[in-house]
Amino acid sequence: MKLNFNEKGLIPAIIQDYKTNKVLTLCYMNKDALEETFKEGRVYVFRRSKNKLMLKGETSGNIQAVKEVLVDCENNSLLFKVEQKVAACHEGYFTCYFRQIDKDGNEKIVEKKIFDPKEEYKE
Amino acid sequence: MKLNFNEKGLIPAIIQDYKTNKVLTLCYMNKDALEETFKEGRVYVFRRSKNKLMLKGETSGNIQAVKEVLVDCENNSLLFKVEQKVAACHEGYFTCYFRQIDKDGNEKIVEKKIFDPKEEYKE
Repeated sequence: MKLNFNEKGLIPAIIQDYKTNKVLTLCYMNKDALEETFKEGRVYVFRRSKNKLMLKGETSGNIQAVKEVLVDCENNSLLFKVEQKVAACHEGYFTCYFRQIDKDGNEKIVEKKIFDPKEEYKE
Repeated sequence: MKLNFNEKGLIPAIIQDYKTNKVLTLCYMNKDALEETFKEGRVYVFRRSKNKLMLKGETSGNIQAVKEVLVDCENNSLLFKVEQKVAACHEGYFTCYFRQIDKDGNEKIVEKKIFDPKEEYKE
């Protein structure tokens, strides 16, 4: 089985909570991130804005322990079922998908805030 | 709220079954696909390999009725909760993520086959 990394050397990885099946986030892995994720059993991502490999939750401590890894029918993307510590989103919600939108772009928050990012990330 | 379409004019869209919360597939939408999806209440995708707008399930009849649309914290991706007719994967499985993989790339099928693609797509 050969994964299809894109022209930037990345493959999209959907991260899902293994207990609730909530989708937590979509991230991108290069070969090193994928290798490290398998080796450590915790999600590592390739942070495109910083151009470097990072442990998801490195700053906050809210790591993701890998329970299961699945691949799509065309080897174009991955699905990680994880045990999420505290919350996945840096804005303080369990999932990054905490806003519902309608066709006019109106948004509504549909998740509870778990922590205050100002407190969590202060020096 | 302004969505971030990438340099190709696309935004990734995770499709999830609203009953089981199973992740079905990852697809890509351009502005037209998104508009059509909202208008029709059924998932339209931009098929990159064919460079055109298509109703998901157009060939098979296995359409996806939209129940809820969510956006991630950075406006970089969408999550569609849908009612999936029959099965999402053209290989006959309910979800495109029907293979579990391990660190050595070994794969194991973990979903039941719902239909035989040879029968479903024959002329």
